[in-house]
Amino acid sequence: MRPIDWDESAGAVRILDQTALPEAENVLVLDSVDAMVAAIRRLAVRGAPALGVAGALGVALAARTLPAAEVPAALARLRAARPTAVNLARGVDLAAAALPDGPDAVLAAALRLRDAEVVASTAMAERAAALLPGRSLRLMTICNTGALAAVERGTALAVVDQVRQEGRLERVIACETRPLLQGARLTAWELQRMGAEFDLIVDAAGASVIGRGLVDAVLVGADRIAANGDVANKVGTLALALAARYARPPARGGAVPCYVVAPESTIDLGTPDGSAIEIENRGAEEVLSVRGIPLAPAGTTALNPAFDVTPAGLVTAIVTDRRVIWTAAGERPRDVELPDA
Amino acid sequence: MRPIDWDESAGAVRILDQTALPEAENVLVLDSVDAMVAAIRRLAVRGAPALGVAGALGVALAARTLPAAEVPAALARLRAARPTAVNLARGVDLAAAALPDGPDAVLAAALRLRDAEVVASTAMAERAAALLPGRSLRLMTICNTGALAAVERGTALAVVDQVRQEGRLERVIACETRPLLQGARLTAWELQRMGAEFDLIVDAAGASVIGRGLVDAVLVGADRIAANGDVANKVGTLALALAARYARPPARGGAVPCYVVAPESTIDLGTPDGSAIEIENRGAEEVLSVRGIPLAPAGTTALNPAFDVTPAGLVTAIVTDRRVIWTAAGERPRDVELPDA
Repeated sequence: MRPIDWDESAGAVRILDQTALPEAENVLVLDSVDAMVAAIRRLAVRGAPALGVAGALGVALAARTLPAAEVPAALARLRAARPTAVNLARGVDLAAAALPDGPDAVLAAALRLRDAEVVASTAMAERAAALLPGRSLRLMTICNTGALAAVERGTALAVVDQVRQEGRLERVIACETRPLLQGARLTAWELQRMGAEFDLIVDAAGASVIGRGLVDAVLVGADRIAANGDVANKVGTLALALAARYARPPARGGAVPCYVVAPESTIDLGTPDGSAIEIENRGAEEVLSVRGIPLAPAGTTALNPAFDVTPAGLVTAIVTDRRVIWTAAGERPRDVELPDA
Repeated sequence: MRPIDWDESAGAVRILDQTALPEAENVLVLDSVDAMVAAIRRLAVRGAPALGVAGALGVALAARTLPAAEVPAALARLRAARPTAVNLARGVDLAAAALPDGPDAVLAAALRLRDAEVVASTAMAERAAALLPGRSLRLMTICNTGALAAVERGTALAVVDQVRQEGRLERVIACETRPLLQGARLTAWELQRMGAEFDLIVDAAGASVIGRGLVDAVLVGADRIAANGDVANKVGTLALALAARYARPPARGGAVPCYVVAPESTIDLGTPDGSAIEIENRGAEEVLSVRGIPLAPAGTTALNPAFDVTPAGLVTAIVTDRRVIWTAAGERPRDVELPDA
């Protein structure tokens, strides 16, 4: 099943609760904006493309269930549920533009976004896979960027699946992605279902695994891409990009390419550069515990930035559903023409 | 109490079981080589300087408890208990040299090593602290390099304590250090007892916290330092060193210094460079679970290198109890004179 979709018979949104994976495949029915906001905030639905669809479907719920006077405040709550991924606010805005035409028009707009993200997943997967030479590729990734993060297929993990379908995948190295372990829980679950060979590593091992020559390319998603090509993505991405560039000096094999794979809907030309991206700081308890088990002595405090910003120059290229932007070579999203769709 | 010491009344080694911290302060009495080997292998005693003392005291146990014919095999088991930290093999060898003089001489040699590591801790702490300018320092560290890793005070964390005693410590950023969480469990415990202000972060956040300008210096320990200055240390160190060098471009404040703090006993001139250091690969279950709770779907495999190698050029300086080796500037341990003790 898709991790998020509209359930026509229920007149509500159905999501696969990602906080319960991989132990349980629980389906939640969200029939109100507040239920959607709560699901977004606790990461029951997550991933930039999926958040865009969640935002748009949230507006559809608002249009169907709330008095008109309450809709603006509901939309504000939806937009603010998570600040970093631009797709969420953009999905809200896209569906909200149809509000004057009534609830059915809002739902139709949301479903068009859903369908567009499905098409985009395949387009970026094929485009990025074509950039990867070789017949036995070892690909590293972080967080979850598969179907669970989108509607189908995904972003960076869709490229892995594309390479696998082409018979060119040797192995995936998946970073566990503390604190919430989207790599260990979700990416591992998807890779198993995909039938891909993979190993999990702790995030701290990424640099050394790259430095030892065990990785042919690093593939990551994005939560917001600024006009200059700086990329906000799951915290830990910056360390992988630094390692891809610098952990293998020329004498030991040289840099490894690092690709950001994301739909055009993640590029935000209104954000000039990474310093203008709001980084979500989540609760300390996510760092201080795993599955409710405390890890540190009582009284310990923690910083928990959920994302980091990788400078454009460390990214080999940004691959979208419509173009390749060679950021390390100096190209910038704001300067690279968007071909006709 | 010291994390490891000789208990004269018991005729045995007493250790504080570090696998039980911070929940419980359990003391274990080790009265045989096999008990010592088991304690080392499961990290009940850990940290390069402490492992040196453990190795030496292990030989003392061998000399007291085993028939002479069984001692060589026992020493081989001790040496092989963990391969990366040179201190362990060196401690074994140092004590073994006294075997011809009988058990009391072996014990005396082990206790001299213990006492020497205590003196070394203070010497390197004062020397490294003197290299850190400023009156409100924000220091980042990984793993545990405090008293628990040594006999007293420690290595990198001893510098933190020194700076604190000088009234110049603003805050510590401690990386949790997956998979075994020595940062979250042990360093947090020591920092609390020290009375230092600190925040815990997931390892993946280290690069971005450095990049955002929240860190004045990175301080790490070492498990083995090669003749050319390459440093094997807890996995994750390489990513911090890369971030210290590259995550803050000149326009945004420039590089942050990264110091390796270790006693001379960790420098191994017999190892030419990092590629010759054996990196211990530990069991996958450490990655796949936390405190026995599985994190990933059943059937998932993992890579678990316990250490990584940071090239000498990424280390600002190696600070020992007897000298400063300015590695980033081109100095190498094999070339820098060791002053008279």
